[in-house]
Amino acid sequence: MPKIVPVILCGGNGTRLWPRSRASKPKPFLPLLGDRTLFQSTLDRCSDHEMFDPPTIVIGEQHLEFARAQAADVPGDPLFIVEPMGRNTAPAIALAALALDPDQIMLVCPSDHHIVDPDAFRSAARSAATLARDDWMVSFGIAATSPETGYGYIRRGEAVGDGFRVHSFVEKPDMERAITFLADGNYAWNGGIFAFKACTYLAELETHRPEIFAAVSTAFERGNRDGETIRPEAAEFAKVEKESVDYAVMENTQRAAMVDVSMGWSDIGNWDALVEQRGSGTQDNVVVGPGEIIGSSGTMIDSDGPHVTVVGADNIVVVVDGDDVLVVSRDAVQRVGEAKRCSGT
Amino acid sequence: MPKIVPVILCGGNGTRLWPRSRASKPKPFLPLLGDRTLFQSTLDRCSDHEMFDPPTIVIGEQHLEFARAQAADVPGDPLFIVEPMGRNTAPAIALAALALDPDQIMLVCPSDHHIVDPDAFRSAARSAATLARDDWMVSFGIAATSPETGYGYIRRGEAVGDGFRVHSFVEKPDMERAITFLADGNYAWNGGIFAFKACTYLAELETHRPEIFAAVSTAFERGNRDGETIRPEAAEFAKVEKESVDYAVMENTQRAAMVDVSMGWSDIGNWDALVEQRGSGTQDNVVVGPGEIIGSSGTMIDSDGPHVTVVGADNIVVVVDGDDVLVVSRDAVQRVGEAKRCSGT
Repeated sequence: MPKIVPVILCGGNGTRLWPRSRASKPKPFLPLLGDRTLFQSTLDRCSDHEMFDPPTIVIGEQHLEFARAQAADVPGDPLFIVEPMGRNTAPAIALAALALDPDQIMLVCPSDHHIVDPDAFRSAARSAATLARDDWMVSFGIAATSPETGYGYIRRGEAVGDGFRVHSFVEKPDMERAITFLADGNYAWNGGIFAFKACTYLAELETHRPEIFAAVSTAFERGNRDGETIRPEAAEFAKVEKESVDYAVMENTQRAAMVDVSMGWSDIGNWDALVEQRGSGTQDNVVVGPGEIIGSSGTMIDSDGPHVTVVGADNIVVVVDGDDVLVVSRDAVQRVGEAKRCSGT
Repeated sequence: MPKIVPVILCGGNGTRLWPRSRASKPKPFLPLLGDRTLFQSTLDRCSDHEMFDPPTIVIGEQHLEFARAQAADVPGDPLFIVEPMGRNTAPAIALAALALDPDQIMLVCPSDHHIVDPDAFRSAARSAATLARDDWMVSFGIAATSPETGYGYIRRGEAVGDGFRVHSFVEKPDMERAITFLADGNYAWNGGIFAFKACTYLAELETHRPEIFAAVSTAFERGNRDGETIRPEAAEFAKVEKESVDYAVMENTQRAAMVDVSMGWSDIGNWDALVEQRGSGTQDNVVVGPGEIIGSSGTMIDSDGPHVTVVGADNIVVVVDGDDVLVVSRDAVQRVGEAKRCSGT
């Protein structure tokens, strides 16, 4: 069985975990859960060399050194594709597809998600790769475990191979609809993990977004390669429209499929999600770094130095990072981005 | 009219305002409200030289330099009495009484209270001094404005001079009784401000606590004086029993009187009280130092350096002091003392 190429996307600024995550050192490169960073854990999940080729890593210049250093203990040389600037996922994946052999199977993985059960991940990857070989464009359909309003959903269609056709992609629902989806059982979360053949992706992109395809192709051709580092040409890549793979391709293709997976997934999209992953119960307090919690429940301290004391405050997150202290209620974590200090630090 | 001698007591560790207030630099010496420290404002209130003699300041060795520096702009030389160790207020006041002429009127003032209306303070001081000249032991009876359970109360008796006899001193009540006291109108807060003649105080102390009187007198006699600094002998002073002026004298004397005063008084006994003094309404947010408050009400930031951002957390106090960060709910401020880091810093 031919191997799968992991394509690790390192875009995104992760400001929802500000101040720990910053543009200068964003979320994938932080050890948020355990000793390994999310980026390293993503590589670890794809390090089975019976199953995977060395990864292709798409990343911005400003984070390249983090990625190189953190990938150093991964056997085999990763291929780095350095984006001159962020243009969202459709162009990023196109760069990787152009760098691979046309028939190689790409497994596109965000670099900043947490997955409790890597065996379930790999099992789903095998099923997805099998479908991809038949030119399906495959999404991981992550078993919904709560009525989340922050994710897009995938509605399951008829069975095909080890998976299903996609009936439809559904935008982030309101709470009422999210509850309906959860009860229905035919709706899965769209976690942004995809499998397809490189040539299939490029053909679909050319069909549905010919301008993006053309501009990315030109930038790639005019770029340079130095060993295992590819740099597309900045002037051409700057012209590429920003668009997600979901909007550009997945929602338009006639060959959308999905595989079901239940793997303890979280995108750790905010501080509340991180408290949930770190604690073992909703009432649990979590202390990372020097701190003490008195008379509180569901509260987290995460300090990189100063000693934090919390007294009588439930469901609060306190983060100290350098010269910044954030105190946020767990039900207000979506508003962290409003902080003046959050932009550009 | 003979002048009044302000006797400023600088004992107490003020750990209820930890981490800003610490044993190494306690509450009286911090500019908690405005540019002047509470100690300086206490001196300012007694700086009318028509009415007051230079103050006598009773203080521990470890804080003497703060007090000297902060008293530098007070005209006239204060007398410093340096306590070898803290022995509560009855011995501290006795040291001051021994240092003064027997007939001088002492106005005993804590150094860490906030008073909005200094004219009302001075007016009450005049009334109290007049009673003190007739050998009354006079307490300031502070007009209660809320049903406080954290203060002792003074119950008003029959009128005498510009004040009243004290019917009785009442221990800190529970909420039900505090509400009754407030409605009754004959109960005032005992704010720890007293006026009496030096010889009257010493006579009362000798009557009711002869051991304290004897030990303090010996320590004072065996001490030394260097200009305007008096140091009682440590070995003798160490033998003195710790007791408050309330328990030792005021609750036992047959000559207890009180004067009514309404002067916008607060002992700023915890972080909640400080938020109240700093804000102009209960919903107000307060930011002292670099900080931003988003989607919150009744919340205070007080930082000595790092930038604090609070998001969606009501009625929270965040204090940054050196290497300590405190986050406390305003309804849990009484528990700050439970923090491990609070002791001995």
